[in-house]
Amino acid sequence: MRYELYYWPGIQGRGEFVRLALEEAGADYVDVARKRGDAAIARLVERKGEKHPPFACPALKAGKLLIAQTANILLYLGPRLGLAPKDVAGALWTHQLQLTVTDFVMETHDTHHPISSQLYFEDQIPAAKKRTEYFWRYRVPKFLGYFETVLARSGGPWLTGRRLTYADLSLFQVVAGLRYAFPKRMRRFEKKVPGLIALHDRVAARPRIKAYLASARRLPFNEWGIYRQYKLLDA
Amino acid sequence: MRYELYYWPGIQGRGEFVRLALEEAGADYVDVARKRGDAAIARLVERKGEKHPPFACPALKAGKLLIAQTANILLYLGPRLGLAPKDVAGALWTHQLQLTVTDFVMETHDTHHPISSQLYFEDQIPAAKKRTEYFWRYRVPKFLGYFETVLARSGGPWLTGRRLTYADLSLFQVVAGLRYAFPKRMRRFEKKVPGLIALHDRVAARPRIKAYLASARRLPFNEWGIYRQYKLLDA
Repeated sequence: MRYELYYWPGIQGRGEFVRLALEEAGADYVDVARKRGDAAIARLVERKGEKHPPFACPALKAGKLLIAQTANILLYLGPRLGLAPKDVAGALWTHQLQLTVTDFVMETHDTHHPISSQLYFEDQIPAAKKRTEYFWRYRVPKFLGYFETVLARSGGPWLTGRRLTYADLSLFQVVAGLRYAFPKRMRRFEKKVPGLIALHDRVAARPRIKAYLASARRLPFNEWGIYRQYKLLDA
Repeated sequence: MRYELYYWPGIQGRGEFVRLALEEAGADYVDVARKRGDAAIARLVERKGEKHPPFACPALKAGKLLIAQTANILLYLGPRLGLAPKDVAGALWTHQLQLTVTDFVMETHDTHHPISSQLYFEDQIPAAKKRTEYFWRYRVPKFLGYFETVLARSGGPWLTGRRLTYADLSLFQVVAGLRYAFPKRMRRFEKKVPGLIALHDRVAARPRIKAYLASARRLPFNEWGIYRQYKLLDA
Protein backbone atom coordinates (compact mmCIF):
# COMPACT_ATOMS: atom_id res chain seq x y z
CA MET A 1 0.00 0.00 0.00
CA ARG A 2 1.38 3.40 -0.97
CA TYR A 3 0.05 6.05 1.40
CA GLU A 4 -0.45 9.63 0.31
CA LEU A 5 0.02 12.26 3.00
CA TYR A 6 -1.48 15.69 2.40
CA TYR A 7 0.08 18.36 4.56
CA TRP A 8 1.57 21.81 4.23
CA PRO A 9 5.01 21.46 2.70
CA GLY A 10 6.70 24.28 4.63
CA ILE A 11 6.13 23.20 8.23
CA GLN A 12 6.36 20.22 10.53
CA GLY A 13 3.03 21.12 12.17
CA ARG A 14 0.49 18.43 12.90
CA GLY A 15 1.58 16.49 9.85
CA GLU A 16 4.85 15.66 11.58
CA PHE A 17 3.14 13.23 13.95
CA VAL A 18 2.03 11.25 10.91
CA ARG A 19 5.37 11.59 9.12
CA LEU A 20 7.18 10.15 12.13
CA ALA A 21 4.95 7.08 12.17
CA LEU A 22 5.37 6.49 8.45
CA GLU A 23 9.13 6.94 8.71
CA GLU A 24 9.59 4.68 11.72
CA ALA A 25 7.66 1.95 9.97
CA GLY A 26 9.56 2.37 6.71
CA ALA A 27 6.17 2.75 5.03
CA ASP A 28 5.81 3.49 1.35
CA TYR A 29 4.40 7.01 1.24
CA VAL A 30 4.37 10.23 -0.73
CA ASP A 31 4.33 13.61 0.96
CA VAL A 32 2.09 14.95 -1.77
CA ALA A 33 2.32 18.71 -1.35
CA ARG A 34 6.11 18.61 -1.05
CA LYS A 35 6.16 16.96 -4.42
CA ARG A 36 3.36 18.79 -6.20
CA GLY A 37 2.93 22.00 -4.18
CA ASP A 38 0.30 23.47 -1.89
CA ALA A 39 -2.34 23.47 -4.58
CA ALA A 40 -2.72 19.72 -4.19
CA ILE A 41 -4.08 20.34 -0.69
CA ALA A 42 -6.62 22.90 -1.81
CA ARG A 43 -7.76 20.53 -4.53
CA LEU A 44 -8.26 17.78 -1.97
CA VAL A 45 -9.97 19.86 0.70
CA GLU A 46 -12.26 21.64 -1.72
CA ARG A 47 -13.06 18.67 -3.93
CA LYS A 48 -16.69 19.04 -4.93
CA GLY A 49 -18.95 16.32 -3.72
CA GLU A 50 -16.31 14.54 -1.60
CA LYS A 51 -18.44 12.73 0.98
CA HIS A 52 -15.75 12.66 3.65
CA PRO A 53 -14.19 16.11 3.29
CA PRO A 54 -11.35 16.90 5.71
CA PHE A 55 -11.91 19.94 7.89
CA ALA A 56 -8.18 20.59 7.68
CA CYS A 57 -4.86 18.90 7.01
CA PRO A 58 -3.22 16.51 7.62
CA ALA A 59 -5.18 14.03 5.55
CA LEU A 60 -4.13 10.58 4.44
CA LYS A 61 -5.19 8.67 1.39
CA ALA A 62 -4.98 4.95 1.90
CA GLY A 63 -6.45 3.18 -1.08
CA LYS A 64 -10.03 4.34 -1.25
CA LEU A 65 -10.01 5.77 2.26
CA LEU A 66 -9.52 9.45 2.89
CA ILE A 67 -8.80 10.05 6.58
CA ALA A 68 -8.23 13.33 8.42
CA GLN A 69 -7.55 14.46 11.99
CA THR A 70 -4.03 13.56 13.11
CA ALA A 71 -5.08 11.21 15.92
CA ASN A 72 -7.59 9.50 13.64
CA ILE A 73 -4.92 8.90 11.00
CA LEU A 74 -2.69 7.36 13.65
CA LEU A 75 -5.58 5.27 14.95
CA TYR A 76 -5.84 3.83 11.45
CA LEU A 77 -2.13 3.48 10.77
CA GLY A 78 -1.09 2.21 14.21
CA PRO A 79 -1.99 -1.47 13.97
CA ARG A 80 -1.21 -1.57 10.23
CA LEU A 81 2.32 -0.24 10.73
CA GLY A 82 3.05 -2.25 13.89
CA LEU A 83 2.89 0.93 15.94
CA ALA A 84 -0.11 0.13 18.16
CA PRO A 85 -1.55 -2.89 19.91
CA LYS A 86 -4.31 -4.69 18.05
CA ASP A 87 -6.42 -5.64 21.07
CA VAL A 88 -9.27 -3.28 22.01
CA ALA A 89 -7.89 -2.24 25.39
CA GLY A 90 -4.41 -1.53 24.04
CA ALA A 91 -5.67 0.32 20.97
CA LEU A 92 -7.95 2.55 23.05
CA TRP A 93 -5.23 3.28 25.58
CA THR A 94 -2.72 4.26 22.90
CA HIS A 95 -5.33 6.46 21.23
CA GLN A 96 -6.22 8.03 24.57
CA LEU A 97 -2.58 9.03 25.05
CA GLN A 98 -2.52 10.47 21.55
CA LEU A 99 -5.64 12.54 22.21
CA THR A 100 -3.96 13.93 25.30
CA VAL A 101 -0.97 14.85 23.14
CA THR A 102 -3.44 16.54 20.78
CA ASP A 103 -4.83 18.67 23.60
CA PHE A 104 -1.34 19.63 24.70
CA VAL A 105 -0.31 20.53 21.15
CA MET A 106 -3.36 22.79 20.80
CA GLU A 107 -2.54 24.51 24.09
CA THR A 108 1.08 24.92 23.01
CA HIS A 109 0.04 26.51 19.74
CA ASP A 110 -2.19 28.95 21.55
CA THR A 111 0.70 30.30 23.63
CA HIS A 112 1.70 32.35 20.59
CA HIS A 113 -1.83 32.77 19.26
CA PRO A 114 -4.14 33.16 22.27
CA ILE A 115 -6.55 35.53 20.52
CA SER A 116 -6.75 34.30 16.94
CA SER A 117 -4.80 32.52 14.25
CA GLN A 118 -6.08 35.22 11.92
CA LEU A 119 -3.84 37.74 13.63
CA TYR A 120 -0.08 37.88 13.56
CA PHE A 121 1.82 36.99 16.70
CA GLU A 122 2.95 40.62 16.83
CA ASP A 123 -0.67 41.71 17.23
CA GLN A 124 -1.29 39.63 20.34
CA ILE A 125 1.95 39.80 22.31
CA PRO A 126 0.61 40.87 25.74
CA ALA A 127 -1.93 38.04 25.76
CA ALA A 128 0.68 35.61 24.42
CA LYS A 129 3.08 36.50 27.23
CA LYS A 130 0.42 35.97 29.86
CA ARG A 131 -0.83 32.73 28.37
CA THR A 132 2.73 31.45 28.13
CA GLU A 133 3.35 32.21 31.81
CA TYR A 134 0.35 30.16 32.84
CA PHE A 135 1.18 27.47 30.33
CA TRP A 136 4.59 26.90 31.88
CA ARG A 137 3.39 27.31 35.44
CA TYR A 138 0.43 24.91 35.22
CA ARG A 139 -0.03 23.12 31.94
CA VAL A 140 3.47 21.90 31.08
CA PRO A 141 3.94 20.38 34.56
CA LYS A 142 0.49 18.83 34.38
CA PHE A 143 0.81 17.32 30.90
CA LEU A 144 4.45 16.26 31.00
CA GLY A 145 4.09 15.12 34.62
CA TYR A 146 1.19 12.96 33.50
CA PHE A 147 3.19 11.32 30.73
CA GLU A 148 6.10 10.80 33.12
CA THR A 149 3.74 8.95 35.47
CA VAL A 150 2.31 6.86 32.63
CA LEU A 151 5.81 5.92 31.56
CA ALA A 152 6.84 4.97 35.10
CA ARG A 153 3.78 2.79 35.54
CA SER A 154 4.10 1.08 32.16
CA GLY A 155 7.30 -0.64 33.23
CA GLY A 156 8.95 0.91 30.17
CA PRO A 157 10.80 1.42 28.05
CA TRP A 158 7.80 2.85 26.18
CA LEU A 159 4.61 4.60 27.25
CA THR A 160 2.48 1.51 26.87
CA GLY A 161 5.15 -0.97 27.97
CA ARG A 162 7.53 -3.05 25.97
CA ARG A 163 6.56 -2.04 22.47
CA LEU A 164 6.99 1.28 20.76
CA THR A 165 3.76 2.97 19.61
CA TYR A 166 2.89 6.08 17.68
CA ALA A 167 2.25 7.80 21.02
CA ASP A 168 5.96 7.49 21.84
CA LEU A 169 6.88 9.04 18.51
CA SER A 170 4.48 11.89 19.21
CA LEU A 171 5.98 12.52 22.63
CA PHE A 172 9.41 12.65 21.05
CA GLN A 173 8.07 15.42 18.83
CA VAL A 174 6.54 17.26 21.79
CA VAL A 175 9.87 17.28 23.62
CA ALA A 176 11.79 18.31 20.49
CA GLY A 177 9.25 21.05 19.83
CA LEU A 178 9.33 22.49 23.33
CA ARG A 179 13.14 22.49 23.22
CA TYR A 180 13.04 24.46 20.00
CA ALA A 181 10.34 26.93 21.03
CA PHE A 182 11.36 27.50 24.63
CA PRO A 183 15.04 26.58 24.96
CA LYS A 184 15.58 28.31 28.30
CA ARG A 185 12.37 27.28 29.97
CA MET A 186 12.67 23.72 28.75
CA ARG A 187 16.27 23.40 29.92
CA ARG A 188 15.14 24.30 33.44
CA PHE A 189 12.15 22.02 33.28
CA GLU A 190 13.68 18.86 31.87
CA LYS A 191 15.10 17.55 35.12
CA LYS A 192 11.54 17.06 36.34
CA VAL A 193 10.76 14.55 33.60
CA PRO A 194 13.89 12.41 33.18
CA GLY A 195 11.90 9.47 31.88
CA LEU A 196 10.43 11.49 29.02
CA ILE A 197 13.82 12.87 28.09
CA ALA A 198 15.24 9.35 27.99
CA LEU A 199 12.27 8.31 25.84
CA HIS A 200 12.95 11.21 23.49
CA ASP A 201 16.55 10.09 23.15
CA ARG A 202 15.59 6.46 22.54
CA VAL A 203 13.25 7.52 19.75
CA ALA A 204 15.89 9.78 18.21
CA ALA A 205 18.37 6.90 18.19
CA ARG A 206 16.15 4.44 16.33
CA PRO A 207 17.81 3.77 12.99
CA ARG A 208 14.96 4.89 10.73
CA ILE A 209 14.13 7.95 12.82
CA LYS A 210 17.80 8.87 13.02
CA ALA A 211 18.10 8.64 9.25
CA TYR A 212 14.90 10.62 8.81
CA LEU A 213 16.01 13.41 11.16
CA ALA A 214 19.28 13.71 9.26
CA SER A 215 17.52 13.81 5.88
CA ALA A 216 16.02 16.67 3.90
CA ARG A 217 12.62 15.07 4.48
CA ARG A 218 12.69 16.39 8.06
CA LEU A 219 11.77 20.04 7.69
CA PRO A 220 13.44 22.37 10.16
CA PHE A 221 11.34 23.95 12.89
CA ASN A 222 10.37 27.49 11.97
CA GLU A 223 8.05 30.33 12.91
CA TRP A 224 5.02 29.12 10.96
CA GLY A 225 4.32 25.88 12.76
CA ILE A 226 3.12 24.89 16.22
CA TYR A 227 6.48 25.30 17.91
CA ARG A 228 7.83 28.79 17.33
CA GLN A 229 10.88 30.35 18.86
CA TYR A 230 9.91 33.78 20.11
CA LYS A 231 12.43 35.19 22.55
CA LEU A 232 9.72 37.30 24.15
CA LEU A 233 8.00 34.14 25.35
CA ASP A 234 11.08 32.31 26.60
CA ALA A 235 11.83 34.22 29.80
CA MET B 1 -23.14 -4.24 30.81
CA ARG B 2 -23.59 -1.45 33.35
CA TYR B 3 -21.38 1.47 32.41
CA GLU B 4 -19.96 3.83 35.02
CA LEU B 5 -19.48 7.42 33.91
CA TYR B 6 -17.11 9.59 35.92
CA TYR B 7 -17.69 13.26 35.38
CA TRP B 8 -18.16 16.43 37.39
CA PRO B 9 -21.66 16.40 38.83
CA GLY B 10 -22.34 20.14 38.56
CA ILE B 11 -21.83 20.76 34.85
CA GLN B 12 -22.72 19.40 31.44
CA GLY B 13 -19.18 19.97 30.19
CA ARG B 14 -17.44 17.34 28.11
CA GLY B 15 -19.29 14.61 29.97
CA GLU B 16 -22.51 15.65 28.27
CA PHE B 17 -21.39 14.24 24.93
CA VAL B 18 -21.12 10.84 26.60
CA ARG B 19 -24.34 11.22 28.57
CA LEU B 20 -26.26 11.96 25.38
CA ALA B 21 -24.98 8.77 23.75
CA LEU B 22 -25.83 6.65 26.80
CA GLU B 23 -29.28 8.23 27.05
CA GLU B 24 -30.14 7.88 23.36
CA ALA B 25 -29.21 4.20 23.49
CA GLY B 26 -31.14 3.59 26.70
CA ALA B 27 -27.92 2.15 28.12
CA ASP B 28 -27.63 0.94 31.69
CA TYR B 29 -25.29 3.45 33.32
CA VAL B 30 -24.48 5.21 36.56
CA ASP B 31 -23.36 8.82 36.64
CA VAL B 32 -21.04 8.02 39.51
CA ALA B 33 -20.16 11.43 40.92
CA ARG B 34 -23.78 12.57 40.87
CA LYS B 35 -24.55 9.63 43.09
CA ARG B 36 -21.47 9.54 45.30
CA GLY B 37 -20.03 13.04 45.00
CA ASP B 38 -16.90 14.61 43.50
CA ALA B 39 -14.58 12.60 45.65
CA ALA B 40 -15.26 9.51 43.53
CA ILE B 41 -13.54 11.28 40.64
CA ALA B 42 -10.46 12.19 42.63
CA ARG B 43 -10.23 8.60 43.85
CA LEU B 44 -10.36 7.36 40.27
CA VAL B 45 -7.94 9.87 38.75
CA GLU B 46 -5.41 9.57 41.55
CA ARG B 47 -5.63 5.83 42.06
CA LYS B 48 -2.13 4.62 42.85
CA GLY B 49 -0.66 2.27 40.35
CA GLU B 50 -3.53 2.55 37.84
CA LYS B 51 -1.85 1.61 34.57
CA HIS B 52 -4.24 3.57 32.38
CA PRO B 53 -4.77 6.73 34.41
CA PRO B 54 -7.08 9.33 32.87
CA PHE B 55 -5.53 12.75 32.32
CA ALA B 56 -8.93 14.26 33.06
CA CYS B 57 -12.63 13.47 33.13
CA PRO B 58 -14.84 12.22 31.59
CA ALA B 59 -13.82 8.61 32.12
CA LEU B 60 -15.89 5.50 31.56
CA LYS B 61 -15.63 2.18 33.28
CA ALA B 62 -16.85 -0.66 31.09
CA GLY B 63 -16.17 -3.94 32.81
CA LYS B 64 -12.42 -4.06 33.25
CA LEU B 65 -11.78 -1.22 30.81
CA LEU B 66 -11.16 2.31 32.01
CA ILE B 67 -11.41 4.73 29.09
CA ALA B 68 -10.88 8.50 29.03
CA GLN B 69 -10.96 11.31 26.47
CA THR B 70 -14.49 12.08 25.31
CA ALA B 71 -13.97 11.13 21.67
CA ASN B 72 -12.22 7.92 22.69
CA ILE B 73 -15.13 6.94 24.93
CA LEU B 74 -17.51 7.52 22.04
CA LEU B 75 -15.24 5.56 19.71
CA TYR B 76 -15.65 2.65 22.10
CA LEU B 77 -19.36 3.09 22.81
CA GLY B 78 -20.45 3.93 19.27
CA PRO B 79 -20.65 0.48 17.69
CA ARG B 80 -21.71 -1.12 20.99
CA LEU B 81 -24.68 1.22 21.41
CA GLY B 82 -25.70 1.21 17.77
CA LEU B 83 -24.50 4.79 17.41
CA ALA B 84 -21.71 4.31 14.87
CA PRO B 85 -21.06 2.19 11.81
CA LYS B 86 -19.06 -0.97 12.43
CA ASP B 87 -17.09 -0.95 9.18
CA VAL B 88 -13.63 0.65 9.23
CA ALA B 89 -14.42 3.49 6.84
CA GLY B 90 -17.64 4.43 8.62
CA ALA B 91 -16.13 4.19 12.08
CA LEU B 92 -13.16 6.38 11.12
CA TRP B 93 -15.37 8.95 9.44
CA THR B 94 -17.70 9.23 12.44
CA HIS B 95 -14.70 9.56 14.74
CA GLN B 96 -13.16 12.18 12.47
CA LEU B 97 -16.31 14.28 12.76
CA GLN B 98 -16.22 13.87 16.54
CA LEU B 99 -12.60 15.02 16.70
CA THR B 100 -13.58 18.10 14.74
CA VAL B 101 -16.34 18.72 17.29
CA THR B 102 -13.68 18.32 19.99
CA ASP B 103 -11.54 21.02 18.40
CA PHE B 104 -14.51 23.34 18.12
CA VAL B 105 -15.50 22.73 21.75
CA MET B 106 -11.98 23.58 22.90
CA GLU B 107 -12.04 26.79 20.87
CA THR B 108 -15.45 27.67 22.25
CA HIS B 109 -14.25 27.17 25.82
CA ASP B 110 -11.29 29.43 25.20
CA THR B 111 -13.50 32.35 24.21
CA HIS B 112 -14.11 32.95 27.92
CA HIS B 113 -10.70 31.66 29.04
CA PRO B 114 -8.18 32.75 26.40
CA ILE B 115 -5.33 33.22 28.87
CA SER B 116 -5.74 30.46 31.44
CA SER B 117 -8.31 28.26 33.13
CA GLN B 118 -6.48 29.07 36.35
CA LEU B 119 -7.78 32.63 36.16
CA TYR B 120 -11.35 33.78 36.57
CA PHE B 121 -13.17 35.06 33.51
CA GLU B 122 -13.22 38.47 35.19
CA ASP B 123 -9.42 38.53 35.09
CA GLN B 124 -9.20 38.07 31.32
CA ILE B 125 -12.10 40.06 29.89
CA PRO B 126 -10.27 42.17 27.28
CA ALA B 127 -8.63 39.08 25.76
CA ALA B 128 -11.93 37.16 25.99
CA LYS B 129 -13.76 39.90 24.10
CA LYS B 130 -11.18 39.94 21.36
CA ARG B 131 -11.01 36.18 21.07
CA THR B 132 -14.80 36.00 20.93
CA GLU B 133 -14.90 38.53 18.08
CA TYR B 134 -12.55 36.45 16.00
CA PHE B 135 -14.28 33.25 17.03
CA TRP B 136 -17.59 34.47 15.63
CA ARG B 137 -16.07 36.13 12.60
CA TYR B 138 -13.94 33.19 11.45
CA ARG B 139 -14.25 30.03 13.49
CA VAL B 140 -18.00 29.59 13.92
CA PRO B 141 -18.63 30.08 10.18
CA LYS B 142 -15.78 27.71 9.35
CA PHE B 143 -16.76 24.91 11.74
CA LEU B 144 -20.54 25.12 11.40
CA GLY B 145 -20.27 25.73 7.68
CA TYR B 146 -18.18 22.58 7.44
CA PHE B 147 -20.76 20.48 9.26
CA GLU B 148 -23.52 22.00 7.12
CA THR B 149 -21.61 20.87 4.01
CA VAL B 150 -21.05 17.39 5.43
CA LEU B 151 -24.74 17.09 6.19
CA ALA B 152 -25.74 18.25 2.70
CA ARG B 153 -23.40 15.76 1.08
CA SER B 154 -24.45 12.84 3.26
CA GLY B 155 -27.91 12.83 1.76
CA GLY B 156 -29.28 13.15 5.30
CA PRO B 157 -31.06 13.11 7.55
CA TRP B 158 -27.89 12.59 9.64
CA LEU B 159 -24.28 13.63 9.29
CA THR B 160 -23.15 10.26 8.02
CA GLY B 161 -26.32 9.47 6.11
CA ARG B 162 -29.34 7.45 7.04
CA ARG B 163 -28.39 6.40 10.54
CA LEU B 164 -27.97 8.50 13.63
CA THR B 165 -24.48 8.47 15.20
CA TYR B 166 -22.90 9.92 18.30
CA ALA B 167 -21.57 12.75 16.10
CA ASP B 168 -25.15 13.91 15.50
CA LEU B 169 -25.83 13.92 19.23
CA SER B 170 -22.67 15.96 19.77
CA LEU B 171 -23.68 18.51 17.15
CA PHE B 172 -27.04 18.85 18.86
CA GLN B 173 -25.13 19.75 22.01
CA VAL B 174 -22.93 22.23 20.15
CA VAL B 175 -25.99 24.06 18.78
CA ALA B 176 -27.73 24.00 22.16
CA GLY B 177 -24.58 25.27 23.86
CA LEU B 178 -24.00 28.13 21.43
CA ARG B 179 -27.64 29.15 21.82
CA TYR B 180 -27.22 29.28 25.57
CA ALA B 181 -23.86 31.07 25.61
CA PHE B 182 -24.41 33.52 22.78
CA PRO B 183 -28.18 33.94 22.33
CA LYS B 184 -27.96 37.11 20.22
CA ARG B 185 -25.06 36.12 18.04
CA MET B 186 -26.45 32.65 17.49
CA ARG B 187 -29.90 33.95 16.55
CA ARG B 188 -28.30 36.04 13.80
CA PHE B 189 -26.10 33.18 12.65
CA GLU B 190 -28.58 30.32 12.53
CA LYS B 191 -30.06 31.17 9.15
CA LYS B 192 -26.71 30.29 7.60
CA VAL B 193 -26.88 26.70 8.78
CA PRO B 194 -30.49 25.59 8.38
CA GLY B 195 -29.51 21.96 8.01
CA LEU B 196 -27.76 21.89 11.37
CA ILE B 197 -30.67 23.59 13.07
CA ALA B 198 -33.04 20.99 11.63
CA LEU B 199 -30.66 18.27 12.81
CA HIS B 200 -30.65 19.81 16.29
CA ASP B 201 -34.44 19.72 16.32
CA ARG B 202 -34.60 16.13 15.09
CA VAL B 203 -32.26 15.03 17.88
CA ALA B 204 -34.26 16.96 20.49
CA ALA B 205 -37.43 15.24 19.33
CA ARG B 206 -36.14 11.68 19.67
CA PRO B 207 -38.16 10.02 22.42
CA ARG B 208 -35.29 9.11 24.72
CA ILE B 209 -33.48 12.42 24.26
CA LYS B 210 -36.71 14.32 24.77
CA ALA B 211 -37.34 12.45 28.01
CA TYR B 212 -33.75 13.01 29.09
CA LEU B 213 -33.84 16.74 28.39
CA ALA B 214 -37.03 17.04 30.45
CA SER B 215 -35.56 15.05 33.35
CA ALA B 216 -33.46 16.09 36.32
CA ARG B 217 -30.62 14.06 34.82
CA ARG B 218 -30.04 16.85 32.29
CA LEU B 219 -28.16 19.47 34.24
CA PRO B 220 -28.92 23.05 33.27
CA PHE B 221 -26.26 25.06 31.47
CA ASN B 222 -24.40 27.32 33.88
CA GLU B 223 -21.30 29.47 34.18
CA TRP B 224 -18.89 26.69 35.14
CA GLY B 225 -19.01 24.62 31.98
CA ILE B 226 -17.90 25.05 28.39
CA TYR B 227 -20.88 27.15 27.32
CA ARG B 228 -21.22 30.18 29.56
CA GLN B 229 -23.58 33.07 29.15
CA TYR B 230 -21.57 36.25 29.59
CA LYS B 231 -23.42 39.28 28.27
CA LEU B 232 -20.10 41.02 27.67
CA LEU B 233 -19.27 38.45 25.00
CA ASP B 234 -22.65 38.39 23.26
CA ALA B 235 -22.60 41.67 21.39
